[in-house]
Amino acid sequence: MTRLVMKFGGTSMGDLERIRRAARIVAAEAGRGRQVAVVVSAMAGKTNELVAWTDGAGAPSAGVALSDDEYDVVVASGEQVTSGLLALTLRNMGFKARSWMGWQVPILTDDAHGKARIEDIPGDRLGAAMDAGEIAVIPGFQGVTADGRITTLGRGGSDTSAVAVAAALDCLCDIYTDVDGVYTTDPRIEAKARRLERVSYEEMLEMASLGAKVLQTRSVELAMAKQVPVRVLSSFIEPDEYGNLPAAAGTLICDEEEIVEKRIVSGVTMSRDEARIALLGLSDRTDAPADVFTRLAEANVNVDMIVQSQARTEGAVNLTFTTGRRDAARAAELMKAAQNQIGFEEIRIDTDVAKVSVVGVGMRSHAGVAQTMFRALADKGIKFQAISTSEIKISVLIEDAYAELAVRALHSAYGLDAL
Amino acid sequence: MTRLVMKFGGTSMGDLERIRRAARIVAAEAGRGRQVAVVVSAMAGKTNELVAWTDGAGAPSAGVALSDDEYDVVVASGEQVTSGLLALTLRNMGFKARSWMGWQVPILTDDAHGKARIEDIPGDRLGAAMDAGEIAVIPGFQGVTADGRITTLGRGGSDTSAVAVAAALDCLCDIYTDVDGVYTTDPRIEAKARRLERVSYEEMLEMASLGAKVLQTRSVELAMAKQVPVRVLSSFIEPDEYGNLPAAAGTLICDEEEIVEKRIVSGVTMSRDEARIALLGLSDRTDAPADVFTRLAEANVNVDMIVQSQARTEGAVNLTFTTGRRDAARAAELMKAAQNQIGFEEIRIDTDVAKVSVVGVGMRSHAGVAQTMFRALADKGIKFQAISTSEIKISVLIEDAYAELAVRALHSAYGLDAL
Repeated sequence: MTRLVMKFGGTSMGDLERIRRAARIVAAEAGRGRQVAVVVSAMAGKTNELVAWTDGAGAPSAGVALSDDEYDVVVASGEQVTSGLLALTLRNMGFKARSWMGWQVPILTDDAHGKARIEDIPGDRLGAAMDAGEIAVIPGFQGVTADGRITTLGRGGSDTSAVAVAAALDCLCDIYTDVDGVYTTDPRIEAKARRLERVSYEEMLEMASLGAKVLQTRSVELAMAKQVPVRVLSSFIEPDEYGNLPAAAGTLICDEEEIVEKRIVSGVTMSRDEARIALLGLSDRTDAPADVFTRLAEANVNVDMIVQSQARTEGAVNLTFTTGRRDAARAAELMKAAQNQIGFEEIRIDTDVAKVSVVGVGMRSHAGVAQTMFRALADKGIKFQAISTSEIKISVLIEDAYAELAVRALHSAYGLDAL
Repeated sequence: MTRLVMKFGGTSMGDLERIRRAARIVAAEAGRGRQVAVVVSAMAGKTNELVAWTDGAGAPSAGVALSDDEYDVVVASGEQVTSGLLALTLRNMGFKARSWMGWQVPILTDDAHGKARIEDIPGDRLGAAMDAGEIAVIPGFQGVTADGRITTLGRGGSDTSAVAVAAALDCLCDIYTDVDGVYTTDPRIEAKARRLERVSYEEMLEMASLGAKVLQTRSVELAMAKQVPVRVLSSFIEPDEYGNLPAAAGTLICDEEEIVEKRIVSGVTMSRDEARIALLGLSDRTDAPADVFTRLAEANVNVDMIVQSQARTEGAVNLTFTTGRRDAARAAELMKAAQNQIGFEEIRIDTDVAKVSVVGVGMRSHAGVAQTMFRALADKGIKFQAISTSEIKISVLIEDAYAELAVRALHSAYGLDAL
């Protein structure tokens, strides 16, 4: 019998009525003979409330360290509640169902509390229960260490839980969410955005890292590594009177080889979580940039784009880099504190920037992709401050105010507009 | 080093400020060298919210069976939250602390979900952690079956958890609550009520079953069986500037032999959770009462007082008994449905009754205790409808309107009034 993992997020678990709707969707899949494991998030807003409590229980100034194992004990409780409630709801619809806490499955993780990584999910007990006709309901986001302490995977970790369970059960993973698939760009920015029938793991990974919020980056990494086919589907559907679901829409995230219609560019993304830091008059010692980036790496500040240019001063350069916006102040502090050791004249921080990217596996075999981008931006009078590329994406850093305009211009330039 | 179990109820865990106050009390005990295990309830009101959700997840009419294992998964989460928060708070005050879920200790119970009984608490791992200087924080109310399913002990079960942990650790159990001890009667009814310095297990057990709400009956039974000394203390205290707690007030619940000052009567209790059911014109077959009480027992209706009297009809008796008020309607239905098989003429139900009791181990060796009671009631013109006695208590059923008057009269008659 075919197995299936279905994942429902916090909005789909937001209240009892929504839980009942999710249960009807699960029932439709179980009713057509699937062995189903359901992975659920906490009720929308619940995790924020629990996190606020742990902050309050911490020292008045410092708050609580995310790495604290007791943070996980508190925060993991939200998913425990929804998994019990969904199991109850399914039982009352006449199905056999039970919840499996992270420590019961077990979903074994490392001990990096607050951001643990799944190490192993022995699927045998879970699989045996499903073979016996029982729907398994599993709280997302939570796991357990080898010595029996509760862990959580970090925000958005329920997607990762779902993919990991699907990998353990060697089956498909359907992610039910509040959008009905992956779009060529955010439909709130460009009404002509189209839903993609299929998108490759690599494209999805770039799009997730570049600002598309539909799936958590780690879940896509895991799906790619374990070759788990993932579908993104809308949870705002209802089975018909016979209990059948509407014809599958959504987006399938799969291997590149399984995508027949190749596109040069599959999507345009935008991220405002960017900050630009410029070190002016940096010593042109060859090890100066290494000194800068070592200090940032040691403080866990991720650096994205890097540009080096000639400074006005003889024997000096300007070094510009971008970080996440939340890290910018800390990164600047670090630089200022080490100004003499590093050796630079001035530091400038600019958070008035956005990153716009185009992503597509077709870039590998097509020339002129960058040229199209630069021309489209130039036509709208948009200057870019930095560029970074990978094999399948090009990102530019631009002034924040131009971000939506740039998205629309690129969406049109690469022929993505819906007809 | 002396070990100590401290238990804080839902009011004491009601918000972060109250959790901090509880933490300061725990810190005071730990600061004077005690090895402390803390047992906590869920935030006040939280368990009701969770129970309501499980009801909502059940079938629209039937609700959820309390015996459902998924009910326990949902409802046990409340104590998980407060135990994590208290552990965090203690850590931020500089103490070593960690939470121990029911499945981690483990607190092993039977599989009677929703009202499980504790079967064993292996105290070795917990004790070792405490020996290493760590404060243990344990969610009350929850346990785990031998095959790893979450259970709960039934409402008020956190007192029982605390006593069971104290038994496993072979130490004292301090119950912090919103009153500062056990009183000779409810001070809201009789302002002259006095706090008892000590009360015996047996007296406390009778008082708890007879309406005193300070401790859950099962916790007292367990304390008596395991000879755990229990203190009832107010959680509305603050350690002084040196971190010392005010001189211990409260009430010690202990073995009768440890009470020097013997009283004839220790307390007067009142319960309004009573209903009286009378079967008039019951056949005087000798097995008729057995038939009645077998039917009630099979339906899990507890019967308290029983009175049989001659009926006006020849060859018939009147059988009167009392049940809890919530069971009364169901008991009456049962009787009516079997009216022909049992053989009685008429049934009357009266919920306008209250039970007033006097409790004291001194009754064993003193005559005239009942006489004092009847005279005191007669002096106030209070008639009683039924009587039941045990070795250490006398209860009377009276008209509800006279209940407070009866309490005050008996409190005075047995010399319990404060000077």
